[in-house]
Amino acid sequence: MRLDVVTIFPEYLEPLNVSLVGKARARGQLNVHVHDLRAWTYDRHNTVDDTPYGGGPGMVMKTDPWGDALDTVLADGYETGAQAPAIIVPTPSGRPFTQELAVELSERPWLIFTPARYEGIDRRVMDEYATRVPVYEVSIGDYVLAGGEAAVLVITEAVARLLPGVLGNAESHRDDSFAPGAMANLLEGPVYTKPPVWRGRDIPEVLLSGHHGKIARWRRDEALKRTTVNRPDLIERCDPKAFDKKDREMLSILGWEPDPDGEPFGRFWRRAGGVEE
Amino acid sequence: MRLDVVTIFPEYLEPLNVSLVGKARARGQLNVHVHDLRAWTYDRHNTVDDTPYGGGPGMVMKTDPWGDALDTVLADGYETGAQAPAIIVPTPSGRPFTQELAVELSERPWLIFTPARYEGIDRRVMDEYATRVPVYEVSIGDYVLAGGEAAVLVITEAVARLLPGVLGNAESHRDDSFAPGAMANLLEGPVYTKPPVWRGRDIPEVLLSGHHGKIARWRRDEALKRTTVNRPDLIERCDPKAFDKKDREMLSILGWEPDPDGEPFGRFWRRAGGVEE
Repeated sequence: MRLDVVTIFPEYLEPLNVSLVGKARARGQLNVHVHDLRAWTYDRHNTVDDTPYGGGPGMVMKTDPWGDALDTVLADGYETGAQAPAIIVPTPSGRPFTQELAVELSERPWLIFTPARYEGIDRRVMDEYATRVPVYEVSIGDYVLAGGEAAVLVITEAVARLLPGVLGNAESHRDDSFAPGAMANLLEGPVYTKPPVWRGRDIPEVLLSGHHGKIARWRRDEALKRTTVNRPDLIERCDPKAFDKKDREMLSILGWEPDPDGEPFGRFWRRAGGVEE
Repeated sequence: MRLDVVTIFPEYLEPLNVSLVGKARARGQLNVHVHDLRAWTYDRHNTVDDTPYGGGPGMVMKTDPWGDALDTVLADGYETGAQAPAIIVPTPSGRPFTQELAVELSERPWLIFTPARYEGIDRRVMDEYATRVPVYEVSIGDYVLAGGEAAVLVITEAVARLLPGVLGNAESHRDDSFAPGAMANLLEGPVYTKPPVWRGRDIPEVLLSGHHGKIARWRRDEALKRTTVNRPDLIERCDPKAFDKKDREMLSILGWEPDPDGEPFGRFWRRAGGVEE
């Protein structure tokens, strides 16, 4: 996979040399190019922004540096044989970045990131490139950053770990929170390792039982508990068919009951008199 | 504000020297300490992880390095006069990090981040420290990272820009997506700056009209459009009292109608036959 990042803070992308992404680069699984947007400015102040049309606070990033940068990056990539680019614009106004979207992006051969600063990039830039390549405007969450660079690190890391051969142990995707499969839409519960006692605190006895069925059940119950407390919205979104008899017993203890208007296996809803968080 | 980060990848935190956070440090508004967790390991492999009790793939971070690190960081901070620490644990199993939580954290004087790798930290560590200081387990979004470091960059940036004096223009919070106020729960629409024509594309005429009321109305309509396409969930969560007559006209055009079972100013819901996304 080829990754290009165009930014006014190239040094912010240093973490792309570290850890998982750094190792994937070293192994040749990722081909990363970080570009300084100011290379495409031609005044002596290297201006990338100007005041917004229509007034208001904040500054808007100008069309020309972005247009020239993207033309150069696209031409350079095509010349070296890269194909099927997509532009990824991190913005709080975008659609949510999810694990599902991470999977979709991990199947593309070439991603070009355009992290903006200030109030964002003049709209005409993406209107223009959207006529040529897919443009994904994505938000990593409901909070405001100073710029898109942190979001680029988040998205590249989420995508890179899904590439074939990047994670050492193929199995370690399996129990991820948000991974497809049995634990879909449930948060993982607590984990423990040696020693068995630390500062007077021991570990749940079931984990020493060697009884795989009981351990799996305990983990599932802990996942249901944690999800109920931290993300009741995920329980509401679960496919009810994913809940077996034991799950339903635990959900009932946690204050959930089936929607009375729904099917016998209809969506679950929070019970009004349920447990306090 | 004092920030401590304990991590096995200190170099991943280099962006804390750059841009907004870097400038806030240079001005003395932020006092940042990055610690290498392996400084609190005493075997020659600097081991920080071990296999999980109960079996399964992946590794769990051990109690001792984290306990010793947190004891040292807390003692060091208290000694230099820091007060009221809170521990922030980035984890996909946490509660959602939101702008509201960013505001809450920005009012605390001392944040200690514990980004984990592998399957997470042995549960007993946070069970222990939660008896002494507030522990926030937070998730920056519904996707899986290789570790918590990228989340630390996201959270520190969202928090730092809210500190007094960190953003140059106090007004530039005002129109943020997710900021409290008139635009609460609406995404920002497109922005434009000079030149008026770029690659044959001009800007919406209203922005050149100088008519403040019409410009505000156009921006509001664009925000309603963008939010309907990218985040219909935010429209559903809006306080309907925030919608004036013109908003309601635009919402109706966009395929929304008031909940027929609700109050006249009840929650809005998507119309079944509404516009396609």
